[in-house]
Amino acid sequence: MNQINRLLSPSSVAVIGASGDARKTSGRPIAFLRKHGFQGRLYPVNPRYEEIDGLRCYASVAELPEVPDVALILLGPERANQAVAELSARGCAAAIVLAGGYGETGEDGLQRQQALDAARGQMRILGPNTIGLVNLTERITLSASGALDMDELLAGRIAVVSQSGGILGALLSRGVSAGIGFSKLISTSNEVDLDVADFVDYLADDPATSVIALYLEGLRDSEKFTRAALKARAAGKPVVVYKVGRSEAGAHAANSHTGALAGADNLYSAYFRQLGVIRAETFADLLDIPFALASGRVMHGRRVAILTSTGGAGTLIADNLGVAGFETPTPGLDTAEKLRALDIGDQAVLDRNPIDLTLAGLQPELMRSAIRILLDSPDFDAVISVVGSSGVAQPHLMADAIRDSLAGSDKPVLAYISPHAPSAAQRINGSGGVAFSAPESCASALSAMASFAEQKGGALSPAASTSSTAFDLQLPAGQLDEERSKRLYASFGIPVTRERVVHDGEQAALAARELGGQVVLKVLSERIAHKSEVGGVALGLGADGIGERLERMRDEVGGHVGFVPESFLIQEMVVGGQELILGFHRDPQLGPALLLGMGGVTAELFQDTTLRLLPVDHDQAHEMLRELRTFPLLDGFRGMPKGDIEAAVACIVAFSDMAMQLGDRLVEAEINPLLVRPAGRGVVALDGLTVIA
Amino acid sequence: MNQINRLLSPSSVAVIGASGDARKTSGRPIAFLRKHGFQGRLYPVNPRYEEIDGLRCYASVAELPEVPDVALILLGPERANQAVAELSARGCAAAIVLAGGYGETGEDGLQRQQALDAARGQMRILGPNTIGLVNLTERITLSASGALDMDELLAGRIAVVSQSGGILGALLSRGVSAGIGFSKLISTSNEVDLDVADFVDYLADDPATSVIALYLEGLRDSEKFTRAALKARAAGKPVVVYKVGRSEAGAHAANSHTGALAGADNLYSAYFRQLGVIRAETFADLLDIPFALASGRVMHGRRVAILTSTGGAGTLIADNLGVAGFETPTPGLDTAEKLRALDIGDQAVLDRNPIDLTLAGLQPELMRSAIRILLDSPDFDAVISVVGSSGVAQPHLMADAIRDSLAGSDKPVLAYISPHAPSAAQRINGSGGVAFSAPESCASALSAMASFAEQKGGALSPAASTSSTAFDLQLPAGQLDEERSKRLYASFGIPVTRERVVHDGEQAALAARELGGQVVLKVLSERIAHKSEVGGVALGLGADGIGERLERMRDEVGGHVGFVPESFLIQEMVVGGQELILGFHRDPQLGPALLLGMGGVTAELFQDTTLRLLPVDHDQAHEMLRELRTFPLLDGFRGMPKGDIEAAVACIVAFSDMAMQLGDRLVEAEINPLLVRPAGRGVVALDGLTVIA
Repeated sequence: MNQINRLLSPSSVAVIGASGDARKTSGRPIAFLRKHGFQGRLYPVNPRYEEIDGLRCYASVAELPEVPDVALILLGPERANQAVAELSARGCAAAIVLAGGYGETGEDGLQRQQALDAARGQMRILGPNTIGLVNLTERITLSASGALDMDELLAGRIAVVSQSGGILGALLSRGVSAGIGFSKLISTSNEVDLDVADFVDYLADDPATSVIALYLEGLRDSEKFTRAALKARAAGKPVVVYKVGRSEAGAHAANSHTGALAGADNLYSAYFRQLGVIRAETFADLLDIPFALASGRVMHGRRVAILTSTGGAGTLIADNLGVAGFETPTPGLDTAEKLRALDIGDQAVLDRNPIDLTLAGLQPELMRSAIRILLDSPDFDAVISVVGSSGVAQPHLMADAIRDSLAGSDKPVLAYISPHAPSAAQRINGSGGVAFSAPESCASALSAMASFAEQKGGALSPAASTSSTAFDLQLPAGQLDEERSKRLYASFGIPVTRERVVHDGEQAALAARELGGQVVLKVLSERIAHKSEVGGVALGLGADGIGERLERMRDEVGGHVGFVPESFLIQEMVVGGQELILGFHRDPQLGPALLLGMGGVTAELFQDTTLRLLPVDHDQAHEMLRELRTFPLLDGFRGMPKGDIEAAVACIVAFSDMAMQLGDRLVEAEINPLLVRPAGRGVVALDGLTVIA
Repeated sequence: MNQINRLLSPSSVAVIGASGDARKTSGRPIAFLRKHGFQGRLYPVNPRYEEIDGLRCYASVAELPEVPDVALILLGPERANQAVAELSARGCAAAIVLAGGYGETGEDGLQRQQALDAARGQMRILGPNTIGLVNLTERITLSASGALDMDELLAGRIAVVSQSGGILGALLSRGVSAGIGFSKLISTSNEVDLDVADFVDYLADDPATSVIALYLEGLRDSEKFTRAALKARAAGKPVVVYKVGRSEAGAHAANSHTGALAGADNLYSAYFRQLGVIRAETFADLLDIPFALASGRVMHGRRVAILTSTGGAGTLIADNLGVAGFETPTPGLDTAEKLRALDIGDQAVLDRNPIDLTLAGLQPELMRSAIRILLDSPDFDAVISVVGSSGVAQPHLMADAIRDSLAGSDKPVLAYISPHAPSAAQRINGSGGVAFSAPESCASALSAMASFAEQKGGALSPAASTSSTAFDLQLPAGQLDEERSKRLYASFGIPVTRERVVHDGEQAALAARELGGQVVLKVLSERIAHKSEVGGVALGLGADGIGERLERMRDEVGGHVGFVPESFLIQEMVVGGQELILGFHRDPQLGPALLLGMGGVTAELFQDTTLRLLPVDHDQAHEMLRELRTFPLLDGFRGMPKGDIEAAVACIVAFSDMAMQLGDRLVEAEINPLLVRPAGRGVVALDGLTVIA
């Protein structure tokens, strides 16, 4: 059994700094372990006690009768570091360091955290500054959190890993109140050693876990996370993440809090999408979506039946589903007939959706039959059943009806609880159903279920951010000028403009004649990034007079930049088509990324761009183009000519391949614009900029 | 006292069809009225009883010893209509009809509802199909809803009017569980007579109400609602609305449910904004925002201090505030020094935001002082205090600290409850604070408070949708062609292209010569709406050859439309500038509306448009232009020339004035495109289309 397995499922636990006073925080862990039924060997360590709660207490780590699987360290930071060194020396598998006062408090704390890392040797550490972990499946509580002071732990199929201990406690408390159980709860906090990715990797193999929920402030090692998330996906386990740092204020707070670097939040969204990781939009979604997914039921389409006994709440649900892109079709003739055969009464509305049983919905047998009919109906992919005011006094009604309807169909059945009726929710959640009290939660849970069901194989390969420098790049470090950039791109199969480097008017005229037709004259210097802003671009020239124009440009640009430019580019002028922007950059957290955007000022105002972590393959390149809201401009909108979409896709893939092959030497690259010509006529890079390390 | 006042605050109530069996629905109203302490005179009416619960029971309406202020009618629909006629004949002020089976059930029901309307005479009706109303301030319950089966009604400053009875019950139940009280609860449902607007009007005067919350499916009389909402606004009472029908599914369900027509949802949003009505985005917001507003505290800016004893939840709040556009600046030197003087301990983080008191936050005196310092600080406009896991065991801690800090500042103080701790929330809400358990609610409540504080005077005048036909329009009904449309627009001061109507090539050449420069040739017919699609537009022509071109166009267009066009337009060709679209239409629910959009295919893909109900004044026209996400295209973006914004504003106002003066005869009007030329050069309508009734 590896160290992380022993940490989560220890046979023996030492509690370092345990107190005999159960009212103290340091008295809690042993009390919790025994209360919740830990079956392994338990060793309190504290020189001030002979015995704690009937257990022999040891004076030091050295005196322990065996090497424990896990040590839970309750000491302050300095003594904790000492204990870690001793435990590591004895060969302990893992330690949990609860103390704060490390990286989260500034420079001194950071040094203390480095010392902790040095002290641990081969031993694995959870924390520091963590509230620990709880293995609910095996009833092992390795924590001092007051949240564990409950009579019974409710085991379930959802594992939660959180970079904040407080948030983990909040999720446990919220889950318990809703009747939602967990398999494992782990707070990684400062992550001096074990991080979120390590536990995702572990949970992918954990038979007790079927959904993994994560609360993230930022990733320390995105390559490891990629591998772990893909492993979970391969195991058929959805990963749901709520990540802060969507705003500058949040990113700043998160940085101060755990020191995890923020990275660009919109790139995180792209990254999660590539990995098939579901991003929760609201904090409530972080519990609600995993709970719906943990039901194991499958959303095969987007048609939802709403069953209600109270019209208003049915409308509310229909509206929220509609906003989320679901259909709420009326029952087909066959289904409507079966519903009518239930003999529900005159006022019932059975040929619409919401299907309103009115007061008849309070008869359990009728409600059960109606749910069954809708689950069996080919008209619907899911059922949402509304619990009205009767749910307060009769909390069991809907729970029983749902429980009895589940077998024989794998379609989702959700309950929307209209009044405040926590007992009804608990009962439904406890008997195989899924109950929510926010209409938005019904919609977001079904959306997540639909997207999980639709997911194809892993879009991002584990090699994604493992750049290798396979390509022998004969280029100096620094910024490459346009001509060298485009030669580089062309060597990877990206079509570029035909062009000649010239130094004087005579060469310019010759080049213009060679290229034929109208040409473009540009200043050429790796020291000038924005040519047009300094008068360094002239369009639509012929060979006649181009020499004179070149000298004028030399003067004008020279006046702007403070040196006399020596080189110029004479370039074929390509017109007709739609402009794209293709960019490469390296995110400090997530690694190499590709940006695709529509060109033109209007699209720029709408920030019509999309991102991907590398590598990007043919399918993903297609997907990126179609994600642009202005994609119709390439696709024959309003009678415009269709663009050469296949050539654009090939270019995006070539750009991605180039970046992968150049590896760490490529710092930045941009084709702006990439002209997408009418179908059959290809694409051409009109400009290029590259930075090499 | 008027009839609506008597309905809400009756001295005498007759309960028609009351049952002596308190377990029956028809037994509840009298039981509830007495339980909650109704002080007026109460008359059960039912021929089957002599006495109900010690009250004399009357056999019929005719036998009642006085004319009651209100009759609560518990009978089925047919007998209810009969009772209404009898009550009306006796002069009863108002009746509440609980029965369903009216407009919500189809054609028969609709006829029954018309019969009810006829029967009521001068009497006012709430319902039918309503759950009634509750006046919590005076403890008068006129309802059979099981939701009233609670020991005590919690009175507060929020009034709720709902077009769904079930939703009203849900809100009451949710409010009570959170410790949120109400002043009045009213379910209007089918609105055969009294509608939402009538009650907004009433509540604007109600001294017990300071915030009005509305659950809407659609408005039946938007003019009345406009007047009522502006009255509430003038009284300083915020109106918060959650409206379904945002999606087609929701609109369809709402239509089926109460028969209120949907209208365009995005126009509702514009309308609410014009009225200063706050639109709740989530269902939870419909309680949370009014509750925060009812605190009466004022958000003077957008800088929020977050006070926490648990880092993770502080970060969560900071992130949500950032997403909502709030600032979370670090405390200034002065404030930080005052916090340090509290001597909170080494681990506390006082020079950042979130301000983390760590465990010291559990000391009530310290928390109270910290809140006071932040409320007094000029650095912040509001404080959010985080309740951590301690809130479960010690629910009073934060409630006491907040209660003691409120005096001496009018800034908002919100509490975010991180674990499931309903008692903590109830206590805080009950002692002058405002507690939420969703981070999103904190952000949306503060946003609403900020927007309420920023609101200026009523943007929409009550005359908005009262169109009068003051202008003597010498025009036939039907579609006007481009030339007649533009002549009409020009008569209201809108600049249009110079142009001549011609019928043959000779006239065309003459007109082109008169106009000078390049001209545009267009086919002219009120039967052709989309000229360019049938080859009816030719640009950049001179006098030479224009005659021939005209004949070619006559042939081509004729081939497309199936008749030979007789008239053409020769028009000066105006180039250079940015194109807008200006449109007028009449919403079936909300009345005359103006649409402004950016021209061009890219803006069209982003649906970059904005809407207003008429009339639109100078300030609003400015606001509309600036709401366009592509407004920078008119404002010098990326070195583009600035457009003539003042001329565009004047044109929008002129277009609005025109529509107001033409009144009901104007069905539709569109200027597409309106060319906004560079600053100082004005605007010009290049095309126009009008439909006259």
